[in-house]
Amino acid sequence: MPPEGSVGVVNAKLARFEDPIALKSGARLDAYELAYETYGTLNAARSNAVLVCHALNASHHVAGVYADDPENIGWWDNLIGPGKPLDTNRFFVVGVNNIGGCHGSTGPASINPATGRQWGADFPVVTVEDWVEAQSRLATFLGIVRFAAIMGGSLGAMQAMQWAISQPQRVAHSIVIAAAPKLSAQNIAFNEVARQAITTDPDFHGGNYYSQGVVPKRGLRIARMIGHITYLSDDAMAEKFGRERRGVELKFNFDVEFQIESYLRYQADKFAERFDANTYLRITKALDYFDPAAASGGHLSAALASAEARFLVVSFTSDWRFSPARSHEIVKALLDNRLSVSYAEIDAPHGHDAFLMEDPRYHKLIRAYFDNIAREVSAS
Amino acid sequence: MPPEGSVGVVNAKLARFEDPIALKSGARLDAYELAYETYGTLNAARSNAVLVCHALNASHHVAGVYADDPENIGWWDNLIGPGKPLDTNRFFVVGVNNIGGCHGSTGPASINPATGRQWGADFPVVTVEDWVEAQSRLATFLGIVRFAAIMGGSLGAMQAMQWAISQPQRVAHSIVIAAAPKLSAQNIAFNEVARQAITTDPDFHGGNYYSQGVVPKRGLRIARMIGHITYLSDDAMAEKFGRERRGVELKFNFDVEFQIESYLRYQADKFAERFDANTYLRITKALDYFDPAAASGGHLSAALASAEARFLVVSFTSDWRFSPARSHEIVKALLDNRLSVSYAEIDAPHGHDAFLMEDPRYHKLIRAYFDNIAREVSAS
Repeated sequence: MPPEGSVGVVNAKLARFEDPIALKSGARLDAYELAYETYGTLNAARSNAVLVCHALNASHHVAGVYADDPENIGWWDNLIGPGKPLDTNRFFVVGVNNIGGCHGSTGPASINPATGRQWGADFPVVTVEDWVEAQSRLATFLGIVRFAAIMGGSLGAMQAMQWAISQPQRVAHSIVIAAAPKLSAQNIAFNEVARQAITTDPDFHGGNYYSQGVVPKRGLRIARMIGHITYLSDDAMAEKFGRERRGVELKFNFDVEFQIESYLRYQADKFAERFDANTYLRITKALDYFDPAAASGGHLSAALASAEARFLVVSFTSDWRFSPARSHEIVKALLDNRLSVSYAEIDAPHGHDAFLMEDPRYHKLIRAYFDNIAREVSAS
Repeated sequence: MPPEGSVGVVNAKLARFEDPIALKSGARLDAYELAYETYGTLNAARSNAVLVCHALNASHHVAGVYADDPENIGWWDNLIGPGKPLDTNRFFVVGVNNIGGCHGSTGPASINPATGRQWGADFPVVTVEDWVEAQSRLATFLGIVRFAAIMGGSLGAMQAMQWAISQPQRVAHSIVIAAAPKLSAQNIAFNEVARQAITTDPDFHGGNYYSQGVVPKRGLRIARMIGHITYLSDDAMAEKFGRERRGVELKFNFDVEFQIESYLRYQADKFAERFDANTYLRITKALDYFDPAAASGGHLSAALASAEARFLVVSFTSDWRFSPARSHEIVKALLDNRLSVSYAEIDAPHGHDAFLMEDPRYHKLIRAYFDNIAREVSAS
């Protein structure tokens, strides 16, 4: 059953695009499909649409549940629904799976029309810019000229930022949560270890494992465990697991023993069952490549010169993956351009994952921000 | 050639012990060998001996070079040698490879006398307490009743601390650098990912890979990469690598591209060539298990009640693996016992690895501390 206040049963849809899309890599997809969901109703003025962009491990399934899979609750269901901070009684919310993904949109496991076989290693490396371009075509398909807001956390926030740069006229508010204007060397390093774990798994077969009937689960498990460590703060882990063991006596072997080990192995197993390794490689690469300032000689302010949106930037004190200092860089660049910016640094203990949590101060802030947007929408 | 001021050419020696050693796990080694090196001269009073304990990746080869391998410089050569902060003209320095190791001491790759084959998976899980017991027998073998000082960084520091608890009469000064009184959940998590990478490598064969003629290199590579990330600070990585790429253009593939990727892969390859996976598993487990306060209901002060040594505790501001706050816990527990403690928090940018670096303030401090010990030794 969906939790109370949920949008309830939702349906994923598929939109097919026959216009070729030229990717940043130089590769081209002649046609592609995007899996998406919508909640709420697009108003007559088509002015109440909100796009929610997903991060590394998520999808277009942002809120609600599926009739045939009632345990599969959308990843941001606590924030989005009737009466929730992003209120589906007032807004028309769109979630979309990005190209290169593994939840229904065209990706490495899709059929390559040129060969009639799954793309595998041949699926191109995609970028945040490519995703924004594909999303903008979905917007047009849905009849949305301009989004009231585009919102995301982490890699999702990078898409919200890129929209404001690439498609300035199509986004009124950009909501950038737990983000960074580019990855640090340490961020890239963690991604690289995850990729190395996947690509050196004997079941990876150079990315063409589909035809071998295997999945590089060992690599995916390691990738997921590394991810989890970076999503949680040291304190949150200490609070949640500490040095608690599953038994009183030390085991003196390498079976699971500390609770944190049990948690990591469980999460790893679950992830390896459901996520595609080729997608993981591409999404981490999109993270590494995201650097809008690069084209402006490293000057983020110059990169944001085209932006017209108003911004809400949110960071969390315990996020050591994308610390508040990284959000400050974004805020500074926006202010350099005399753009409207609200900035909040939430004192939350959960680390990077805080953007997914139901923290009262955080949710109150998002609610208030959308209340203002709703007033603009009504007045327009 | 050894760097200037080095102890020069050194020889590793092997001591064999036929007294069975009862390990904390309940297992017993009927006999074992310890690889060790010594530099300088033990004085007539046998009062100038300093034991240097190694951390995860190091060995008894603490300083100098080997005649047949002049590029193999001891891991703490910048600190230890004639005229150096730990001056081998004044002190008799002992380095020892711990049991379970892979540099000459009895470990998983040694022959199990019960079977005539390499121990492999059957080699017991060893602990910091076990290492201290074995080291104390080496001390007796070398005619050392009491060490002027026992020193280590990271896991080595844990041994210096354990000596002060287990063998209080045999250590005058305990020098505890970049340490923690026990691992946090996050620390254990990183170790667990490394272990999972090793044990799920198809070449691991449940730990009995020696007889298969293979080595779980994939797992060792991942373990080493994770290690490196935690040894360096985010800032140090940013300073050293930033987002520099090996080429100007983005590659849009998964070859090595950013300099940090190149560094990690190089370090990983080098490590996988020379380190034993079974040792890696055991050393990380010894880290996880180290928790002297556990036997005293979690009270570190009670655990240190037996200590008589004077302490020097050193932390580094940018060390996020074992942050200064972790050293503060040690200092507090020592002060609770009215023990003599000097504490220094060095403002160094290198992260956990700072304890191996030639930072002038750090080295000056160690030099001054050993100058005082030398005066005590002369006066005694």
